Amino acid sequence: MKIRTLLLSLATLLLSLAASAQEMGNFRAARIVSPEITDEGITFRLRADYATQVSLSVAWQPGQVAMRRGADLVWSVTLPTPSPDLYSYNFVVDGSTVLDPSNPSMQRDGTTYRNILIVDGPYSAHYKDAPVRGNLSYVWYDSPTIGAERRMAVYTPAGYDESKKKYPVLYLLHGGGGDEEAWSSMGRATQIIDNLIAEGLAEPMIVVMPNGNASQVEAPIYNTPGEPASGTDHAISSDLYVTSLIKDIIPYVDSHYRTIARPEGRAISGLSMGGGHTIRTNYLFPGHFDYICPLSTGAHPHNQKNTPYAFDEQTLSTYLDGIKKAGYKLFWLACGSDDPWFAEAEEFDRLLTEKGMEHTYYVTGGGHTWTNWRHYLDTYARLLFK
Amino acid sequence: MKIRTLLLSLATLLLSLAASAQEMGNFRAARIVSPEITDEGITFRLRADYATQVSLSVAWQPGQVAMRRGADLVWSVTLPTPSPDLYSYNFVVDGSTVLDPSNPSMQRDGTTYRNILIVDGPYSAHYKDAPVRGNLSYVWYDSPTIGAERRMAVYTPAGYDESKKKYPVLYLLHGGGGDEEAWSSMGRATQIIDNLIAEGLAEPMIVVMPNGNASQVEAPIYNTPGEPASGTDHAISSDLYVTSLIKDIIPYVDSHYRTIARPEGRAISGLSMGGGHTIRTNYLFPGHFDYICPLSTGAHPHNQKNTPYAFDEQTLSTYLDGIKKAGYKLFWLACGSDDPWFAEAEEFDRLLTEKGMEHTYYVTGGGHTWTNWRHYLDTYARLLFK
Repeated sequence: MKIRTLLLSLATLLLSLAASAQEMGNFRAARIVSPEITDEGITFRLRADYATQVSLSVAWQPGQVAMRRGADLVWSVTLPTPSPDLYSYNFVVDGSTVLDPSNPSMQRDGTTYRNILIVDGPYSAHYKDAPVRGNLSYVWYDSPTIGAERRMAVYTPAGYDESKKKYPVLYLLHGGGGDEEAWSSMGRATQIIDNLIAEGLAEPMIVVMPNGNASQVEAPIYNTPGEPASGTDHAISSDLYVTSLIKDIIPYVDSHYRTIARPEGRAISGLSMGGGHTIRTNYLFPGHFDYICPLSTGAHPHNQKNTPYAFDEQTLSTYLDGIKKAGYKLFWLACGSDDPWFAEAEEFDRLLTEKGMEHTYYVTGGGHTWTNWRHYLDTYARLLFK
Repeated sequence: MKIRTLLLSLATLLLSLAASAQEMGNFRAARIVSPEITDEGITFRLRADYATQVSLSVAWQPGQVAMRRGADLVWSVTLPTPSPDLYSYNFVVDGSTVLDPSNPSMQRDGTTYRNILIVDGPYSAHYKDAPVRGNLSYVWYDSPTIGAERRMAVYTPAGYDESKKKYPVLYLLHGGGGDEEAWSSMGRATQIIDNLIAEGLAEPMIVVMPNGNASQVEAPIYNTPGEPASGTDHAISSDLYVTSLIKDIIPYVDSHYRTIARPEGRAISGLSMGGGHTIRTNYLFPGHFDYICPLSTGAHPHNQKNTPYAFDEQTLSTYLDGIKKAGYKLFWLACGSDDPWFAEAEEFDRLLTEKGMEHTYYVTGGGHTWTNWRHYLDTYARLLFK
């Protein structure tokens, strides 16, 4: 019986190898493990037969680390294992970016692809697949405000389809250079929310992740190469997008999903430019969200202070009065102390205090990074809709 | 007014550049256009400062094409433009695979990433975004048969959410080495179906694309590096998967979507291993699908003829009798004349004829390629549910 099982397995292996070759001749040389985490550190390996120089770029330190060629043509380097988190990296072979062929896990930042790895620990546990998972849909909705059908990502929590109950909605906005896939790719938003819900730490919620670039209908990576950017050209269009959020996206979500279609069932959060969108939405349309969580930004969205979009202190004061008057349950501002926006966040905290507006100002180390933004989502999502 | 617009645009550009830098320092040198199609041919370009050898691998011809270095450190090569289609390609720099940094469009085949390009023409028109598009969801469903929650892709056509009507369903199965994203990535299934529906050439339909590897819960690229393959180990498990298709997937789809939950509202198709699954499903569970479209395969799924899974001619005859007795509206078999499975497809055609089973045998040139499988989908999808 055992020999039969073995034979079957071998036959299976051969058949599946033959089948998987398909058109691209997908075969590999001897398997290389990379990255590998041991007690000695984290080792990266790349077989690069004809390279004269191979180095490694990792997200947790600046610059590139030289790799050394072994007798087997496999280049490698071992670094001290960084603290638990999700990190991106890539190789550089004779000056060109090379993805790690031993690690198919990747993320996309704009048009840049990098491999990802997770160093295990409590801090990164929520970035891995949860035991029970929600669904992620890429949805086309009509935006009369912008004049286009546009694409967004919508997460529905585990059990949504089988339930009859109504769910609250988190509107989660990306930063500059991002698109509707940024939070689910780099931000691990679906894993974080899945894990929080599975552990009973967050309320089951829908998460809506639109594309914040009003000149795009979808992430431009989906354009056919050589074609112009998709959609109409609305250059700087944050108010157009913010308006479409209120006038197009929320009505679409409320009419297509079982939502708690009131301010107490709505949260809004975003990072950097998306933090600006978060604030601007509440300046222009106060009273739609009881939970407001801008990340890595200040009172003047997009640093418009010295641009033609600047507004004066009186206008700002009126905006804040509007939010105060409309009321909210949570105003949760976060920034890293090394973030270029830290001074703006500090000022925002001071302004809110001066206005007597209850809020949390959550300060961490680190800068304008996904390490921080993932951690912020993992933190404030526990406070929503409670 | 014009100057103000210009200033605003400049300010926008600077702000968005600053914002998009984020944590990874995403800046680039002077923009390089690649690929570029002109009357002279198709040109590929890569700036590779320290490379000693750069070549190009394109899907439409075997081997690698040497590239030449220009004075500006940009390597390039111009090839005759191939016939209209979607093609994959990548660079090879000193022996390492390099993606084209000028072209963010990619596809994934198993664990291999390659850039894609489309040469325009009638043949490839349906591989580009349609003017009106359906939604694509990644859905977790319970499979008691396999003993796991598993991931699949579900396409719903434009207008599905706003409609109250019931839709037919195409179950579309990938081949060996593929997973639940193969048909939407390499197969352009959503674009093809979107375009056919938009042009009135196909009935609006739901398309369900499960993961055909019973040992996986989802595409293994989503495993955390270093972790074992996801899911329980069911080695060769095509019957387990085929059984789960009937017992788990169809009931899930019929209870979660507005479907025509009868044989006349169901089609099944797959390529290579998925063609095997298509046939095997109808051998073991005849009468569930009125539309049966196996691609690049034969009567003996997975080439089991010389394996312990082989069945004799008597069993095969019984299987075919079962399908004939259950009845169907379309049996559409396709294969390329250069396909390694061509002899098996020819034999299958002969067997069906001998049995007096009405069918279409659609023979093309070409081999075991996505060029063929995309074209087959674009062809038979027009015949479904009519």
